[in-house]
Amino acid sequence: MPRWRRSGARCVSEGSHRVVVAGASGYAGALAAELVWRHPRLDLVAATSRSEAGTALSRLYPRYRVPIVLSELDLDALEEVDAAIVGYPPGASASVVAGMRGLGIQVVDLSADFRLREIPIYQKWYGDHGEPDLLVDAVYGLTELDRERIREADLVANPGCYPTAALLALAPLAERGLIEGVVIDAKSGISGAGREGGERDSFVSVTENLVAYGAGGHRHLPEIEQELARLAPEGSPEAPVSFVPHRIALDQGLLASCYVDLAEPLDGERLAALFAERYAGDPFVEVVEAPPGVREVRDTNLCRICAVAIGERKVAVFAAIDNLWKGASGQAVQNLNLMLGLAETEGL
Amino acid sequence: MPRWRRSGARCVSEGSHRVVVAGASGYAGALAAELVWRHPRLDLVAATSRSEAGTALSRLYPRYRVPIVLSELDLDALEEVDAAIVGYPPGASASVVAGMRGLGIQVVDLSADFRLREIPIYQKWYGDHGEPDLLVDAVYGLTELDRERIREADLVANPGCYPTAALLALAPLAERGLIEGVVIDAKSGISGAGREGGERDSFVSVTENLVAYGAGGHRHLPEIEQELARLAPEGSPEAPVSFVPHRIALDQGLLASCYVDLAEPLDGERLAALFAERYAGDPFVEVVEAPPGVREVRDTNLCRICAVAIGERKVAVFAAIDNLWKGASGQAVQNLNLMLGLAETEGL
Amino acid sequence: MPRWRRSGARCVSEGSHRVVVAGASGYAGALAAELVWRHPRLDLVAATSRSEAGTALSRLYPRYRVPIVLSELDLDALEEVDAAIVGYPPGASASVVAGMRGLGIQVVDLSADFRLREIPIYQKWYGDHGEPDLLVDAVYGLTELDRERIREADLVANPGCYPTAALLALAPLAERGLIEGVVIDAKSGISGAGREGGERDSFVSVTENLVAYGAGGHRHLPEIEQELARLAPEGSPEAPVSFVPHRIALDQGLLASCYVDLAEPLDGERLAALFAERYAGDPFVEVVEAPPGVREVRDTNLCRICAVAIGERKVAVFAAIDNLWKGASGQAVQNLNLMLGLAETEGL
Amino acid sequence: MPRWRRSGARCVSEGSHRVVVAGASGYAGALAAELVWRHPRLDLVAATSRSEAGTALSRLYPRYRVPIVLSELDLDALEEVDAAIVGYPPGASASVVAGMRGLGIQVVDLSADFRLREIPIYQKWYGDHGEPDLLVDAVYGLTELDRERIREADLVANPGCYPTAALLALAPLAERGLIEGVVIDAKSGISGAGREGGERDSFVSVTENLVAYGAGGHRHLPEIEQELARLAPEGSPEAPVSFVPHRIALDQGLLASCYVDLAEPLDGERLAALFAERYAGDPFVEVVEAPPGVREVRDTNLCRICAVAIGERKVAVFAAIDNLWKGASGQAVQNLNLMLGLAETEGL
Repeated sequence: MPRWRRSGARCVSEGSHRVVVAGASGYAGALAAELVWRHPRLDLVAATSRSEAGTALSRLYPRYRVPIVLSELDLDALEEVDAAIVGYPPGASASVVAGMRGLGIQVVDLSADFRLREIPIYQKWYGDHGEPDLLVDAVYGLTELDRERIREADLVANPGCYPTAALLALAPLAERGLIEGVVIDAKSGISGAGREGGERDSFVSVTENLVAYGAGGHRHLPEIEQELARLAPEGSPEAPVSFVPHRIALDQGLLASCYVDLAEPLDGERLAALFAERYAGDPFVEVVEAPPGVREVRDTNLCRICAVAIGERKVAVFAAIDNLWKGASGQAVQNLNLMLGLAETEGL
Repeated sequence: MPRWRRSGARCVSEGSHRVVVAGASGYAGALAAELVWRHPRLDLVAATSRSEAGTALSRLYPRYRVPIVLSELDLDALEEVDAAIVGYPPGASASVVAGMRGLGIQVVDLSADFRLREIPIYQKWYGDHGEPDLLVDAVYGLTELDRERIREADLVANPGCYPTAALLALAPLAERGLIEGVVIDAKSGISGAGREGGERDSFVSVTENLVAYGAGGHRHLPEIEQELARLAPEGSPEAPVSFVPHRIALDQGLLASCYVDLAEPLDGERLAALFAERYAGDPFVEVVEAPPGVREVRDTNLCRICAVAIGERKVAVFAAIDNLWKGASGQAVQNLNLMLGLAETEGL
Repeated sequence: MPRWRRSGARCVSEGSHRVVVAGASGYAGALAAELVWRHPRLDLVAATSRSEAGTALSRLYPRYRVPIVLSELDLDALEEVDAAIVGYPPGASASVVAGMRGLGIQVVDLSADFRLREIPIYQKWYGDHGEPDLLVDAVYGLTELDRERIREADLVANPGCYPTAALLALAPLAERGLIEGVVIDAKSGISGAGREGGERDSFVSVTENLVAYGAGGHRHLPEIEQELARLAPEGSPEAPVSFVPHRIALDQGLLASCYVDLAEPLDGERLAALFAERYAGDPFVEVVEAPPGVREVRDTNLCRICAVAIGERKVAVFAAIDNLWKGASGQAVQNLNLMLGLAETEGL
Repeated sequence: MPRWRRSGARCVSEGSHRVVVAGASGYAGALAAELVWRHPRLDLVAATSRSEAGTALSRLYPRYRVPIVLSELDLDALEEVDAAIVGYPPGASASVVAGMRGLGIQVVDLSADFRLREIPIYQKWYGDHGEPDLLVDAVYGLTELDRERIREADLVANPGCYPTAALLALAPLAERGLIEGVVIDAKSGISGAGREGGERDSFVSVTENLVAYGAGGHRHLPEIEQELARLAPEGSPEAPVSFVPHRIALDQGLLASCYVDLAEPLDGERLAALFAERYAGDPFVEVVEAPPGVREVRDTNLCRICAVAIGERKVAVFAAIDNLWKGASGQAVQNLNLMLGLAETEGL
């Protein structure tokens, strides 16, 4: 950790890649800037923010060390930039990404703008889409599920925090057509709501409280449904998905508790083997024996998963991540590493 | 609230009932003592504790005002006692309750010792049962579901905190045979674990953490199953119940998120009507329009419930209680009120 | 507590007083409305808010039970009102109070507008004062220090939360001229900052954090200095006051740790006697033997105080209050009780 | 951070030093083991614990990655060990340290056993001292105040968490004889109390609470007094020290708010310059412009300090550290680096 204390004086090795973080005043963007700056093979050339241009990032977030002043995004000045992480709100992101792609810049987009494959579904949840033509090129960036396509991609749609945890929890079952239906009861720390939460996210509203929200429909549901369908073997019947997120008195951390109706019985041993094998080669997924606490993965890019048979054809799978790391900026860097031909774990 | 500041000088109206709280050093027992002491028609004659005899209750819990010193339980000295609330651990409770019943004392037992109707099931989860003969007399004390039997009872088995919230959430559907299966994802504050939690319940272990536990089987599951079966109309098929509790960084508060597979479709309107009608006459159950936060019911005997249709045959029901009040000591006083012929809400 | 569940149907005894709470959407105003509504001798005729007019108060604060919809303040419609609690921001309060006073309404003002006796000092910290003429009539409402004047007052300036705790901690020493100098290190829960805190008061900023603020000068310092000077015996030399508040990861609660340089030695016994005697007749001040935790007084109007000799001429005094109760709305009702000739503890 | 994911497979560079952590089941010892294991130039050969021998360290602390099983301490087997960090309780540590020193092992002792220079003072606060002869060799390990002596030392007494923050806050003033008296109001996270806190440190006792303790005398006071006296220029009059710690609802973090009576006036500019110059060469001390929040330094070895003139001869100095890092195990590694001739920041 001493590394990010040598402010300014960092010697970046030759062959490093020049990266911009756009929208760096929000929680995810700011962490992305910090991670890029710490990264031994990336060079943070700018961190931008419309609302906070002129402010030192470390003033907004005194816990970060990156010695950079936020600036206005100026696409014309980005010529020598190799890659970007974009932390804009959904809707606002598409046009910025389009501009960057026009300059040949590789992009990881943290927003939802390129996650959903079908425009009508996007429109239902987010409104009009500014750059539908770009969707063809975008790869959904859940690293462990699409590593090879991400390596080849120039535009990666970084997954939402809930879908990241839920899909990692469910993929080993989904890929084998074992899911007949699933209830996802997810719990997230407040940082997942972003920086503009207002009274709803105030300490007074959150502490000693706990509440479900979005039960009638949450934007991450179609994202989970789309990817679960894609994971399922050809010809599998559609598995209904229920998804209810909860807000917890916690800063960083997300737990997805997934209750699966199995298509066929599966005992504890086979279950364990199935998960262990699926993630044997994944440096950031750890299959563990007891349900993981979110504190275990805080400030890391890890996802810890535990599957428990709770009935003959019922399985509970618990996946814990840090919503800002594996659920956003950590996974963005993981994806960027692959896109740039670096080691997947570099800088993480 | 001024009432419990007039320490010592309380004038209890004629016709008040003399009550002992046994096992008053634990969280639930201590609150029971406080509530009995505040109660305008109850007279707290003793609060007992083996481990803390000689200690002022307000020294263990400086937030309580009851001016009583904990004493050893002495059954022989209880002659003029009308009723007792017993806060012993499961297993230890049965014999104390038997002794009290032998003296004609009406008892609300906070432990699990008289909740399960079938001895083999009790044994599986708790070990040997010391007083199986008393089971016949015991009434399961979820007030809203058995008010009339509780009025007539001399021994009430106060429900567990999880079953209280889950059964209140599910009863309107269960009573009509509408439940084909249910997943109960419950979240509880740490006070639910009692006072002897040790390192597991230390602030350092709990803060900024969140973890599932007991996924492989929790003692409250058979209690929920037993009561759901009892609620269902004659001849209903058994509905499988999955129950997974979670530990949350929260003191008092419990949320049961229940995901029900319906036996038949039910739209939002009928769902709302069904819940509203079911609890129309219950002073402590409030059917609300948005998922309730546990902070709303802290330090009250309320249960707030919200049912949301999340699919054609899928309903989410959220029930929030304070685990120490409606989930333990508040409901104990509510039951005692009925047993003693007082108004159900008196002193609450 | 059952009382405030009988929504709407409250029967207020004859001789009750009609009260308006103006500015009831903020934390202190909302609690004031709740407390007035619960009060057996007060009748809440309106709760007003400019920004939230039309919203049910219980929707903003689901933990409150008062069944009232916020309305715009209309001074012309207030004729039959006896009294008001005003929860406006400093600066905005003075003119509203003046209007009410013109109608003969007795007012407890929660803002700072009538606390400081000297206009130049007010101006330095708050800006121009809109109604300087009213200052003559205003009584500083730290109940335990000025009970008789408050009984006669028509306009009470309710003290700030920090001054309430600090002055109660220091008064027994100040009144005897024993203070040569004092450092007040105060710690407050986040509700003390009010409802508009934004990012600074977000859960993410506050949890697992702790920070001093206003070290260079806080608005409550002149208030403390003014009242300490008033308490000191004629001719006492001025005692320098250092005051530094801290923001703590806590909702409601305030602890003032006061380190006093004594004018003369005072041993532990005399110290204890001095505090015990001073507050012997005060129902809401409890002198305790161990430093009080703020959790002990949450949701009460109590102030718990402990004085410890930590050197021959050095004393530490710890005073714990709930900043929203004794530090704001609770004390406002306590004062209103006196102004209206009711028992001081009524409704609290 | 990827480093500590390569479990087992670590290649330690030639010339690395073999280190034992004794007493690794406690909070400080466990973190010390984690830090030694992550360290590029240290080789963790054993982590010992009497009570938890046989348990994987990562089972006790799932957030740590060090892949080691706790073992019994066996001094006879330590021959090839270069250095040790000892995390025993005070009193128990001295004899273990003596045994290690007898083997020529360099030791950083986390306990208080070698901090106090005078046996009678040690006895007053801790009881009998088992190895008084070793005191001569021990160097008090507040790195920034004694770097050169630490480099030469074979036995370093690692400072307490409160003294670390307080002394770093006060040293620039103390060294110039500017302190006439000081009040230290310190606030610590609960991890500072260690792992055996019981009910006092339970989540239920701590959350939404805040309390002073040890006002009548805390073990860290003589340590602070001793070192302040040592820092003062020859012939300075003794400056009285008041020290009151507070327990805060926070895991890791410690803030010392120090209120200094100055021997001579000092304006803000000179004050700032004095602090900036004093710590210009210290990689882990950052002099900042606004009072630091403890969240800023969590999980780092940093101490952030801000000095504010709050009166002509009164200064407030705020020092924030992570009590487990700079307040214990981080500083232990920092000291070990110096003792072993490594770069001070290596592995931190």
